[in-house]
Amino acid sequence: MFDRVYNFSAGPSVMPEEALLRAQKEMLNYGNSGMSVMEMSHRSPVFAEIFESTRQKLREILSVPDTHEILFLQGGATLQFAAIPMNLSRGETADYAVTGNFANKAAKEAEKYCRVHLAASTVPAHDRIPAQAELDLSPEASYFYYCANNTIYGTEWHYVPETASPLVCDMSSDILSRPVDVSRYGLIYAGAQKNMAPAGLTVVIVKKDLAGQELPVTPLVMSYQEMIKAGSMLNTPPCWCIYMLGLTLDWLQSVGGVVGMEQIKKERARKVYEMLDNSTFYKPHAQRDSRSDMNVTFRTESAELDAAFVREAAQHGLCNLKGHKIAGGMRASLYNAMPMEGVDALVSFMKEFERNHV
Amino acid sequence: MFDRVYNFSAGPSVMPEEALLRAQKEMLNYGNSGMSVMEMSHRSPVFAEIFESTRQKLREILSVPDTHEILFLQGGATLQFAAIPMNLSRGETADYAVTGNFANKAAKEAEKYCRVHLAASTVPAHDRIPAQAELDLSPEASYFYYCANNTIYGTEWHYVPETASPLVCDMSSDILSRPVDVSRYGLIYAGAQKNMAPAGLTVVIVKKDLAGQELPVTPLVMSYQEMIKAGSMLNTPPCWCIYMLGLTLDWLQSVGGVVGMEQIKKERARKVYEMLDNSTFYKPHAQRDSRSDMNVTFRTESAELDAAFVREAAQHGLCNLKGHKIAGGMRASLYNAMPMEGVDALVSFMKEFERNHV
Repeated sequence: MFDRVYNFSAGPSVMPEEALLRAQKEMLNYGNSGMSVMEMSHRSPVFAEIFESTRQKLREILSVPDTHEILFLQGGATLQFAAIPMNLSRGETADYAVTGNFANKAAKEAEKYCRVHLAASTVPAHDRIPAQAELDLSPEASYFYYCANNTIYGTEWHYVPETASPLVCDMSSDILSRPVDVSRYGLIYAGAQKNMAPAGLTVVIVKKDLAGQELPVTPLVMSYQEMIKAGSMLNTPPCWCIYMLGLTLDWLQSVGGVVGMEQIKKERARKVYEMLDNSTFYKPHAQRDSRSDMNVTFRTESAELDAAFVREAAQHGLCNLKGHKIAGGMRASLYNAMPMEGVDALVSFMKEFERNHV
Repeated sequence: MFDRVYNFSAGPSVMPEEALLRAQKEMLNYGNSGMSVMEMSHRSPVFAEIFESTRQKLREILSVPDTHEILFLQGGATLQFAAIPMNLSRGETADYAVTGNFANKAAKEAEKYCRVHLAASTVPAHDRIPAQAELDLSPEASYFYYCANNTIYGTEWHYVPETASPLVCDMSSDILSRPVDVSRYGLIYAGAQKNMAPAGLTVVIVKKDLAGQELPVTPLVMSYQEMIKAGSMLNTPPCWCIYMLGLTLDWLQSVGGVVGMEQIKKERARKVYEMLDNSTFYKPHAQRDSRSDMNVTFRTESAELDAAFVREAAQHGLCNLKGHKIAGGMRASLYNAMPMEGVDALVSFMKEFERNHV
């Protein structure tokens, strides 16, 4: 058996070993408090310090301006699919760019609360990102919604759309992997379980002046305005996930923050795509200029060979390379905490597998 | 400094040391998977086993009949305040017994989705539980809602109300502390952070034939029916909390399950109430027949003395004894994982404090 494997899971996914080791060390007694972080009252001074320092670190690392509030919520991206139109649409029209499965789910959920205008769609292949000129923006839109990185299909927006209405972006699978000009966004959100923390935390960064117009049917904990007023503590927050986010941010700072991480992610993705481009054995899914740095999707000539690839890779300690059931094939998720050694091991294995099966 | 303190926090609260030690040991490599539970895909076989075995253990320990489904959700009790009327009220009338702060919040939130009928109220003192004969039940109610244990005020329902409509019960602060006849309930729910797991998991036990009538505005992840269909995995569940629940249930089984725990909880509460009843220095808040076994609320003759009590107790390693700001005074939460030694130490300290300040 391997002590630690290389875990290419699309989420929940690999976390920094440094963060796990610190959590292990502090498990029964955090900072001489005599208790685990899991046991702390969320109102206690010791947890308040964890909470505030984590929020502050995130603000610094992502350069979040004072115009925007950082919220630590629950319910995952899927609850945000409802919260966003509940809070921001005023029941009117919202523009959605459907470039993958989760953007599609978000648009469908929004139909419960507002008129959804399809501003772009890449159905059914979802192998590319539409260009700015392709976006069909409605003049009366309350916001423009897109998903920055499509985990299942392996495509990523490499530009920020220009729109008259506020930008709303699902950054679940590429947040903290690159610098972002937060001031250009009305709302950014991300499920934590890819680049930030264990599943159970949703980070929402919302422009404060957009909050406060929620529909009457909005549940209290889904109101951005109420959560801003309560400092994310309207009810008990997911304390352990917030603590783990803090440990992950410490590690991220040690590797150069989002600027350092962007270099690393570009290098990780370059290695795998270069291998794919030099091979006729593997077929990458995404079109070249739409490729994701976070999720590399590819296949061989047959489903049987794909299955053999996934099975043999696991025997080499390269785990969770099976593509999503919708897309098939393989998917290598190269999130922030994936060590470069894991990428090198993957590329070596891909070459070896190709040699053995051509 | 103390290595581990006695933590009387009302939630999040003390967890079994056995569970924390196992989590610590398995932190970087769960069961030779080569990864932490925090890093596992929720769709992976290794996590599916954790998930299913935890659900099964809970079903066995609480004797949940096949008519009821167990859901592992996010959002806390506060999101359930909205989910319950969204799923069960059909926009009609629901009966609420307001015996404390959280029942009151639940009733207020429900007003967004249905007609709320106040079936009982103990405003403002909340120092007692209404008798069956006091309940003003509406003939057309879609359900009857109550909170089994009022954490802030320290009162607990010691009987199950008889109602024609389905019983809906918030058991956040006394679940797993005693046997419950689940078949008598339409829905039982609990935030995990008191007797079950770290904050971020909400357990819902719902009678299957009540699901499927949600209002059109119900967010997808708040629909019981959709979550039943998806086996709680409509989106990524709070995996780490579910794992910790499993470890806590293993520990609970080792002390005799809910039957064993009820004996322990009765003994814990008896010791503290006996001390209070034998003292003229301390004043218990709750009326005798409504006293909570989980949260013992009391005060001295002055706020200054109360503050001194809380401060000196902490110096003795007895932490988080300050009452909720609404209620003032002191509160000793005696949740499942509180060791009897902690209760004995509390009683000793109370006697000593009384001697020093009479």
